[in-house]
Amino acid sequence: MKPTLPQGTRDFSPEIVRKRSFIFKTIQTQFELYGFEPLETPAFENIDTLMGKYGEEGDKLIFKILNNGLDRPEKHVQAQEDFNRVLTGKNVKGITERALKYDLTIPFARYVAMNKGQINFPFKRYQIQPVWRADRPQRGRYREFTQCDADVVGSKSLINEIELIQLYKEVFEKLNIPVAICVNNRKILAALAELAGGASRLTDITIAIDKLDKTSLDKVMEELSAKNLDEQALDTVKRYLSLKTDETNNKEIIQKLEAMIGMIDIGKEGIQEIKFITNHFADIKLDVTLARGLNYYTGTILEVKPLGIQMGSIGGGGRYDDLTGLFGVPDVPGVGISFGVDRIYDVMDELKLFPDEIQQSVEVMLVNFGEMFQQRNFDILHFLRKNQISAELYPDVIKFDKQLKYAHKKKVSFIIIIGEDELKEGTISIKNFTTGVQEKCQLNDLLQCIK
Amino acid sequence: MKPTLPQGTRDFSPEIVRKRSFIFKTIQTQFELYGFEPLETPAFENIDTLMGKYGEEGDKLIFKILNNGLDRPEKHVQAQEDFNRVLTGKNVKGITERALKYDLTIPFARYVAMNKGQINFPFKRYQIQPVWRADRPQRGRYREFTQCDADVVGSKSLINEIELIQLYKEVFEKLNIPVAICVNNRKILAALAELAGGASRLTDITIAIDKLDKTSLDKVMEELSAKNLDEQALDTVKRYLSLKTDETNNKEIIQKLEAMIGMIDIGKEGIQEIKFITNHFADIKLDVTLARGLNYYTGTILEVKPLGIQMGSIGGGGRYDDLTGLFGVPDVPGVGISFGVDRIYDVMDELKLFPDEIQQSVEVMLVNFGEMFQQRNFDILHFLRKNQISAELYPDVIKFDKQLKYAHKKKVSFIIIIGEDELKEGTISIKNFTTGVQEKCQLNDLLQCIK
Repeated sequence: MKPTLPQGTRDFSPEIVRKRSFIFKTIQTQFELYGFEPLETPAFENIDTLMGKYGEEGDKLIFKILNNGLDRPEKHVQAQEDFNRVLTGKNVKGITERALKYDLTIPFARYVAMNKGQINFPFKRYQIQPVWRADRPQRGRYREFTQCDADVVGSKSLINEIELIQLYKEVFEKLNIPVAICVNNRKILAALAELAGGASRLTDITIAIDKLDKTSLDKVMEELSAKNLDEQALDTVKRYLSLKTDETNNKEIIQKLEAMIGMIDIGKEGIQEIKFITNHFADIKLDVTLARGLNYYTGTILEVKPLGIQMGSIGGGGRYDDLTGLFGVPDVPGVGISFGVDRIYDVMDELKLFPDEIQQSVEVMLVNFGEMFQQRNFDILHFLRKNQISAELYPDVIKFDKQLKYAHKKKVSFIIIIGEDELKEGTISIKNFTTGVQEKCQLNDLLQCIK
Repeated sequence: MKPTLPQGTRDFSPEIVRKRSFIFKTIQTQFELYGFEPLETPAFENIDTLMGKYGEEGDKLIFKILNNGLDRPEKHVQAQEDFNRVLTGKNVKGITERALKYDLTIPFARYVAMNKGQINFPFKRYQIQPVWRADRPQRGRYREFTQCDADVVGSKSLINEIELIQLYKEVFEKLNIPVAICVNNRKILAALAELAGGASRLTDITIAIDKLDKTSLDKVMEELSAKNLDEQALDTVKRYLSLKTDETNNKEIIQKLEAMIGMIDIGKEGIQEIKFITNHFADIKLDVTLARGLNYYTGTILEVKPLGIQMGSIGGGGRYDDLTGLFGVPDVPGVGISFGVDRIYDVMDELKLFPDEIQQSVEVMLVNFGEMFQQRNFDILHFLRKNQISAELYPDVIKFDKQLKYAHKKKVSFIIIIGEDELKEGTISIKNFTTGVQEKCQLNDLLQCIK
């Protein structure tokens, strides 16, 4: 009887929506100042668009939508056959043709592939939309959460990296969150792989290094050993990982990298790119152990971590060679960043960074003393709103103190009282809820009283 | 190979997002000026929350989400049993526990029922979110579309009706759409039912009258005759429907209504309420044939139609006695309105009501002549953005006219050119894209050139 929410989903009360909107607006304003354009794609995609794009584990976490009309008798036989195949882990169109989107990148790639002829390249798009994953819910991990991405596609210039990093810096400055921005380059990791057993080792090495955050160096080396890296290769990786330092000492690290992998073409390229970026930003940190997991990055990789609070990364991104190849459109390189909005929310909540002002739901409440004051009250309402001041009239004629209680909870700045005296005199009694001061004024002076 | 979109869904390109945002922002600004607070609920709900709330037809149009993990062997037997029941039109939790939301009202009711103790009543909430229906797609009807609702719950005062109608008027004024706002009252229809065969006839009569828009009076009378209304009842309904006129002549209609149903208690109440509203708004239209279909309304009902264009209603709403009874919480009356955003979009597009300015994706583009001008370009970018002027540097060093073409497509107002002369002189060449005038200035004068 008593209704509940599905596990891993949340209602956002007005208070929470306002906090979330503060984050979204801050990011969106910056996106637009940088010339990024908004894109929105549907909540669900054809199942073929999504399946097989996120690895086997990912496929299992995609929410599939049951086809409608399965109860029509002519569909029974086919549906039954298809269902049997679902039971063995396969997905069959007979019972599910659609699935909820799992991230914003694949639908974006699908959009670019479908609309390549109409798009003005380089295409700078941003997208702020919910995605869904059938993950086990836990603190900070939800089945519905919002992703917030900006990408530039159709350009190989490193200026895009510079712009995106600058954008990161400005957004977190505006949100008042102190952060460290870490950078690395997949080409450097590729060169490391060449040194440590050959290019085919890149994935193994990337996956292992990526876990360094959550586990120990020994465990990482064990994992690589289990993947049959020989002693010399293990030693190379170990030497590479030892380049990580806690300080921002990019020049020194780069010198050591040059000595270590500078003789390999792809390594030299990676170092060049890292130099370009670290020369531009004095406060960015080269972290050679940054790997960014199992994704399609091929160049610069980025991660943002909040300082002074125990919390994983709140942003990440990187450069990729080929966004739309999966959809039959080759040669669309790009670079993108993503904001971890739910974690940003948690950081700001914990550090009390949300401004108080955003929680005011209405500026002025007019007390309701009955129908005889109604027209006057409506006139004042109209006047205030015409001047962009939010206002409401308490709808019911109930006790004064109950009306006040409502106003307090809505965090109004002023209440306005129109009683018999005010009506007779043509005045307005206005009380400042913060100072407690009450005064009388004319409609013409009302704006001054409020400002 | 070539990807497609699921039927009935749409990508929103930057141009379309900007137009849609213009509508959303206009409505949202007005909601907030009136003291409404934002609420957001998840995309999917427990299937029990939704099923059985929208009639049998509605149940079939709800998108159900396939449970994950059905391929685990221990789930096979149960899943197979449950699937057999799906095939016979029943919905069983074994294979689907969740469903995409079908409207905003039921999730809102679920939210109010779950959070009654924390809510500051009267609760004025607005909600702008997508909903999903497995309807057959056709022009103007989508499987994913956005609803945009405002409701006041926990108050019976007619002041709420006045406020919501005023809100409608102001939003459509701001959007520049000429509209007719029509009003009726379910209590008047209830009184008509009492006259025409008894209170139990209300649903039959409401459903039949609701079709008057799309069909003829004769067909409506036929339908009622088929429902076994006797001659006298049919005559009463016919007499009632004849009160509809094309002009706004509310006083006359009300007089006739008083003569016809004023002796019935509920009719008298309805007439009182209609008088209160029509006295307040000279330009609202009492339309006795307005019925608002098969929903939970019990008092005032509203509909908004655009003038001068062939299009159905672009807004509607009304008063209900009991929002949360379905979820075990009685006595939550309320009144709400809804904006038909997709149709509003179509009307504005057809009447060319979207302002041109909203289509500018960036104000200033800096032409890229190579790395030697890069630092200067970055400094200018930074200066402009710090002053809230959106700006971008073309990322690649390609031919001037190709860069210009990109700028044209992005509808920039100005391009900035830093070449060797400008670098030497410390000047900035800026070209106004509208007037074609190009001039040189200093960084300090740049804002004046742009304003």
